[in-house]
Amino acid sequence: MSTTEKGGGSLLIAWQLKGKKVLIVGGGEVASQRVDSIMNTDAIITILSLSRNLHERTRKFISQFPLSIQLLDKAYEHDTDNTKLLDYDLVLTALDDFEVSKEICQFCREHRIPVNAADIPELCDFYFGSQIRDGPLQIMVSTNGNGPRLANLVKSRIVKALSGSEGAAISKVGVLRVKLRERAPGIGGEVGKRRMAWMTRLCNEWSMEELGALNEENAQRLLDEGWENDRVPSPRALGIKLSRMQVPSSSNNVLPGFIGFCAGLACIVTWKWLRQ
Amino acid sequence: MSTTEKGGGSLLIAWQLKGKKVLIVGGGEVASQRVDSIMNTDAIITILSLSRNLHERTRKFISQFPLSIQLLDKAYEHDTDNTKLLDYDLVLTALDDFEVSKEICQFCREHRIPVNAADIPELCDFYFGSQIRDGPLQIMVSTNGNGPRLANLVKSRIVKALSGSEGAAISKVGVLRVKLRERAPGIGGEVGKRRMAWMTRLCNEWSMEELGALNEENAQRLLDEGWENDRVPSPRALGIKLSRMQVPSSSNNVLPGFIGFCAGLACIVTWKWLRQ
Repeated sequence: MSTTEKGGGSLLIAWQLKGKKVLIVGGGEVASQRVDSIMNTDAIITILSLSRNLHERTRKFISQFPLSIQLLDKAYEHDTDNTKLLDYDLVLTALDDFEVSKEICQFCREHRIPVNAADIPELCDFYFGSQIRDGPLQIMVSTNGNGPRLANLVKSRIVKALSGSEGAAISKVGVLRVKLRERAPGIGGEVGKRRMAWMTRLCNEWSMEELGALNEENAQRLLDEGWENDRVPSPRALGIKLSRMQVPSSSNNVLPGFIGFCAGLACIVTWKWLRQ
Repeated sequence: MSTTEKGGGSLLIAWQLKGKKVLIVGGGEVASQRVDSIMNTDAIITILSLSRNLHERTRKFISQFPLSIQLLDKAYEHDTDNTKLLDYDLVLTALDDFEVSKEICQFCREHRIPVNAADIPELCDFYFGSQIRDGPLQIMVSTNGNGPRLANLVKSRIVKALSGSEGAAISKVGVLRVKLRERAPGIGGEVGKRRMAWMTRLCNEWSMEELGALNEENAQRLLDEGWENDRVPSPRALGIKLSRMQVPSSSNNVLPGFIGFCAGLACIVTWKWLRQ
């Protein structure tokens, strides 16, 4: 896995769409996947599609989140809808009609509106990828258009490798950082550096699962006993003990080891028994 | 890990910047990290910074890739540089001066130029995250601003979980798709569906490591013997045999199992020996 490899790729970014206006043109299955993705972001979504063409999932989203999603019950029309695109911060098309997608994309590009046309990579400013979400943790897998199926296989490998505590750990660390900033305020400078160094030490010395087990009480003790004395207490010292379920998956060596052990015993016993 | 969780997150996307113009304002360490990220994309990069402030790594990039990176050896100036921002498709600032960053971001936002200001999340249209690249495979880990250190820990877990063959597999599948499309051309329709179904079967039946072992010759045989007869031959039938190194890491159960087996043998032998 090279970190020096250059060119031929994309810039992977986390786009902030809170309160921004997103237009999705189309109502089919792919459009409903787009709605699903955008719902992560607290954007205000408009769907331009005849109501009768709406996918079941989109219909559910609309009835579930009427304040976030609005339906314009009509097909896209060249003359009247073109300039209305200017009202939006992001436009996605998911249409069977290549010419309409092309027209929308061209208009958007001329007016610097980021645009994606499903299944037409050459018209896209950006691609979607396979996504994982666990609270504040988001992971994206992109094959740069080389194979969506393999993106899903890589995604499965990643999901298997995570313990499921990462999202909780990240949330807890986020809250702790806010508390620490309240206790030792100031942007940048010496105090900023000290805060950052202490947080880094904490994240290095505690496992993700131990960070995820922080609660109101032991977070308070962590700051009182740790930060104030410029040290990082052990999780055990604050009463954090992980259950067997929470231990990260690298300890899964135990099961095959145990099976091997039993097989070893059985082998010798059988051999002795056969020789008797 | 929930897939139904909504809101509070970002839209993770793979931005396409090939041939696009990117401006990086600043010359320090963070600016050099930005250059590093953008170098993935075949964009044309302009760095606006006094030459004497340039980070060593950026200096190296400029001398290594003079056609992709240009230096404007000056500091940002309010009156003259403002409208020049319109020449760019993407603007990144990495400055100590908050006011200058703010001014640049405001101008960009008014003119729909995507913009990121390092360390000032509230000014950003998008965030960066921890990234992994293996050829056409790109993975991004975002904590939505909750802890860059933890993003790196999650990244390490992911790197450990990958066999290192994923990038090669994705490349090979990409080439195979192109060859298949030459052999059975046509956009969409019946042939499109058949192509997609066959590729999906292949990706399901072969491991990532086996796909990565495809070469010119056995790819040809795969299409001749497989596609033409509407079946997926086994890798072994095409002469693909993986070396021990290439077997995915899930088979790492073998080592702990073997150690357990030996421990079991040793246990019984010791017990017998003590009883003698």
